[in-house]
Amino acid sequence: MPSIDIDLRFSDLDAYGHVNNATIFSLLETARVRLYQDRFTELMHKGLLFLVAEARCRYLKPISLADRLVIDIEPTHVGRTSFTLGYRLHNGGGLQFAEAETVMVCFDQPAGKPAALPDDFRLLLTSND
Amino acid sequence: MPSIDIDLRFSDLDAYGHVNNATIFSLLETARVRLYQDRFTELMHKGLLFLVAEARCRYLKPISLADRLVIDIEPTHVGRTSFTLGYRLHNGGGLQFAEAETVMVCFDQPAGKPAALPDDFRLLLTSND
Amino acid sequence: MPSIDIDLRFSDLDAYGHVNNATIFSLLETARVRLYQDRFTELMHKGLLFLVAEARCRYLKPISLADRLVIDIEPTHVGRTSFTLGYRLHNGGGLQFAEAETVMVCFDQPAGKPAALPDDFRLLLTSND
Amino acid sequence: MPSIDIDLRFSDLDAYGHVNNATIFSLLETARVRLYQDRFTELMHKGLLFLVAEARCRYLKPISLADRLVIDIEPTHVGRTSFTLGYRLHNGGGLQFAEAETVMVCFDQPAGKPAALPDDFRLLLTSND
Repeated sequence: MPSIDIDLRFSDLDAYGHVNNATIFSLLETARVRLYQDRFTELMHKGLLFLVAEARCRYLKPISLADRLVIDIEPTHVGRTSFTLGYRLHNGGGLQFAEAETVMVCFDQPAGKPAALPDDFRLLLTSND
Repeated sequence: MPSIDIDLRFSDLDAYGHVNNATIFSLLETARVRLYQDRFTELMHKGLLFLVAEARCRYLKPISLADRLVIDIEPTHVGRTSFTLGYRLHNGGGLQFAEAETVMVCFDQPAGKPAALPDDFRLLLTSND
Repeated sequence: MPSIDIDLRFSDLDAYGHVNNATIFSLLETARVRLYQDRFTELMHKGLLFLVAEARCRYLKPISLADRLVIDIEPTHVGRTSFTLGYRLHNGGGLQFAEAETVMVCFDQPAGKPAALPDDFRLLLTSND
Repeated sequence: MPSIDIDLRFSDLDAYGHVNNATIFSLLETARVRLYQDRFTELMHKGLLFLVAEARCRYLKPISLADRLVIDIEPTHVGRTSFTLGYRLHNGGGLQFAEAETVMVCFDQPAGKPAALPDDFRLLLTSND
């Protein structure tokens, strides 16, 4: 299962002094873009985007600026035009901050509608299992 | 049901040119803070915070900078130490962009643990039904 | 001189509890995009963008979530391919938060180089004086 | 001269597809907080904050998500209650993106006014020259 280390920034904190709850969805995006960046760029050139259709997060512990943040990502479901990514946010040492999920839809921008996942991308996703 | 009008900003857009999926959670926060701001401030002075325990969003239509954005908020469940807010994001003219939900926990910061919702805040929530 | 009212958001605050210094540059962008939005969109369709070449801000008073924020914008210099906008951030009641300036360059994206300001946009800028 | 490597995020991009001009000020903050984090935390416990009194940036080249971003930081002036940091943003390979400057004021929060820089922090700054 791929793991992405995220460098936290002072701007990730909100007025409560912890990483903001909305910012965490931005960090999920950072993690998956970093993981799939080469393929995302290649697909974008073919007019295919991955849009977030659903997102959810369960917050377990607040994250401080001094914390190490690791995000494990795993495809948990692969459909015809969509797939689901599961995330576990932790400090690399047994402390879990949150768990999350995003449903991603493959979207054909010129056609303006969902498209079947390209075969090689599907393979990439399922080989992560 | 309270409705909050949100002024969109250029910085709400991501590289795809639409309001970013994580930013939408930030707009939910904007809406609920604006709705409950007086009470939130008052409670913070007593050491009580509302933390987001869970958040989820289902994205239906992309939001553009030129769109009007209205967020309807409604308490959908009120428990002893937590409550759930439901959100509907739309353009005020029949076009729905997203629907979302956050579970908020009342947290006693000095004590470092969840606390019962203050009676008057509970009343405020249930009178919105 | 045009004045733009900005609705502050909880997410504009940083861990110090005031509107973040970098966020203020984002609010300047919000103000100028709102002011020139119709013309910006029209020019983008012709392949012309306005890029920020320089930006600076002098911070005088911290801005709180409860403050009203008004941004006055005024073109202070109009050149051949660039123009300068001056900003005054205040509460509409005599309290000034900051003053700022951005130098904007008109950029021809297809050609990949600066372009002369379109005549009618130049007129729009100078008529604001 | 200290150099900080910044991991760019998809959320740093704006609708033009490059790192946003306001976000760059946030990245300057990230760099200086990372550089001085231990001392900042220690001073905060004594009630001392460093506030940004002025900030400015000259943008030379747009920054893409695929770019490496390095920020060199150097104190360029150290006064009694304030100091100035100069920044150079580049790709570590000869391509310069921007140059920037922030004037930081040491602020005694309980007293509500500027305070003299602590001697050991002044030493830290001047030893970087």
